[in-house]
Amino acid sequence: MDPTALKQVMEEFIPFNKHVGVRAVDIENGRVRLEIPFREELIGDPMRRALHGGVISMLVDTAGGCAVWSTVDNPRGRVSTIDLRVDYLRPGRGETLVVEARVVRAGKRVGVVDMNVFHPSAPEEFIATGKGVYNIVLPKVA
Amino acid sequence: MDPTALKQVMEEFIPFNKHVGVRAVDIENGRVRLEIPFREELIGDPMRRALHGGVISMLVDTAGGCAVWSTVDNPRGRVSTIDLRVDYLRPGRGETLVVEARVVRAGKRVGVVDMNVFHPSAPEEFIATGKGVYNIVLPKVA
Amino acid sequence: MDPTALKQVMEEFIPFNKHVGVRAVDIENGRVRLEIPFREELIGDPMRRALHGGVISMLVDTAGGCAVWSTVDNPRGRVSTIDLRVDYLRPGRGETLVVEARVVRAGKRVGVVDMNVFHPSAPEEFIATGKGVYNIVLPKVA
Amino acid sequence: MDPTALKQVMEEFIPFNKHVGVRAVDIENGRVRLEIPFREELIGDPMRRALHGGVISMLVDTAGGCAVWSTVDNPRGRVSTIDLRVDYLRPGRGETLVVEARVVRAGKRVGVVDMNVFHPSAPEEFIATGKGVYNIVLPKVA
Repeated sequence: MDPTALKQVMEEFIPFNKHVGVRAVDIENGRVRLEIPFREELIGDPMRRALHGGVISMLVDTAGGCAVWSTVDNPRGRVSTIDLRVDYLRPGRGETLVVEARVVRAGKRVGVVDMNVFHPSAPEEFIATGKGVYNIVLPKVA
Repeated sequence: MDPTALKQVMEEFIPFNKHVGVRAVDIENGRVRLEIPFREELIGDPMRRALHGGVISMLVDTAGGCAVWSTVDNPRGRVSTIDLRVDYLRPGRGETLVVEARVVRAGKRVGVVDMNVFHPSAPEEFIATGKGVYNIVLPKVA
Repeated sequence: MDPTALKQVMEEFIPFNKHVGVRAVDIENGRVRLEIPFREELIGDPMRRALHGGVISMLVDTAGGCAVWSTVDNPRGRVSTIDLRVDYLRPGRGETLVVEARVVRAGKRVGVVDMNVFHPSAPEEFIATGKGVYNIVLPKVA
Repeated sequence: MDPTALKQVMEEFIPFNKHVGVRAVDIENGRVRLEIPFREELIGDPMRRALHGGVISMLVDTAGGCAVWSTVDNPRGRVSTIDLRVDYLRPGRGETLVVEARVVRAGKRVGVVDMNVFHPSAPEEFIATGKGVYNIVLPKVA
């Protein structure tokens, strides 16, 4: 799918992405970088001021779907998550959250994606890593 | 942890839970039921009006942590997610989303939880199932 | 696929199944029960005499593939694992190991399976649970 | 744990490792490389001559446990798998199977490991990737 159109879909047309504040910073064929700027609403542990695990899982899932979608040529194709795994390696802080997703198995019907989550201030220190499997649904030929 | 206190923590003290609208409907020892009432902001696919996968993963993660927390006696104990898996079985509709979580392995330091996600209108049709592993951190004795 | 043929494939035609000693005890449409009789070679921890985790993951993967295969009508169809998750809940003992696998999402191209692993002497005490996603590959029409 | 002792445990003392033919080629602190030389018994699909998925999951699990174990100082410490995920990216061929495992989160009680599986003839083409979470059990102080 065209990167500019996909960016617009990600940022403008998907209500929950807007609600959480997802930005599609970079979209290439099979590789994407998404971000969520920090807001107080994203906190999960007020004592440690750590980001909520659900913000991380949401960003990981969104990035994986976006990465697979970027490989689909048919503009009427759709992508839906089959399964998702997130490993939480350290707490997320009150900073912009970044995910980089990369398609590692690109089939006609199924895509598999690796994701790494980090803060821009420490791109080598992964906050979480993800694995997702996505279904590619193409419209039936009329 | 005391169920009434835990309910308040879940609903009032965790900002992202409030932002998404999580309600802790039932908390027992090792078993919890959480809900998210439907709002337009939770949509992930406007064409099909399907819930965002990130709403589901967020609810699954939150419920797993809450279920493990309910088994921790020490009021200063904390729970954090080690890893999470979500299998998406069918699209979520524009209705209240429910998760039931049950601790299947309750250790002193690690808890494992099964989660089932569904709508109240069709409690047998799982929208997603989850597995989560949680770390139980107890304060050091002074 | 015909259950009798599938049983024979599982037990006779797949070398690693034979090497480990997998028995296909019951095959229905979308539900299977496989077993591995105990042998000393299956031990992973000689001190505790616990089964090797790899015996369990092998049995879970095999059962999931078999369960999906049982739903495929085309005799030339094939099934391959996309991803597998195993949660280990308690050590396996020196007894027959049983897995029950059930297809929870049966698509044309992808099947999702739940598995429970236990000993016949304590069928309620799960040693492990599994989730697998499988690709269904049908031969191209000539 | 001492690498030479750990290599011996892996290769000699764990019966299922011997049964499958696991070799501990390289053990460092938090990083290990294990191999399984090819034998006909490891085949899972005789038509394609592909390795059995259970050989891969077994090797991934074993390598993850070994990698965590390599970080444990106490010689009486033990490691057991909490959960394991394997993503199968392409079929394994009739060649030596290699796994490299790396600890990505080394706690006192829980270790998280990334694994990559490949053939020596094509080390960049991953056959599978894995994620495992392991419990570190230390003997109680007498």
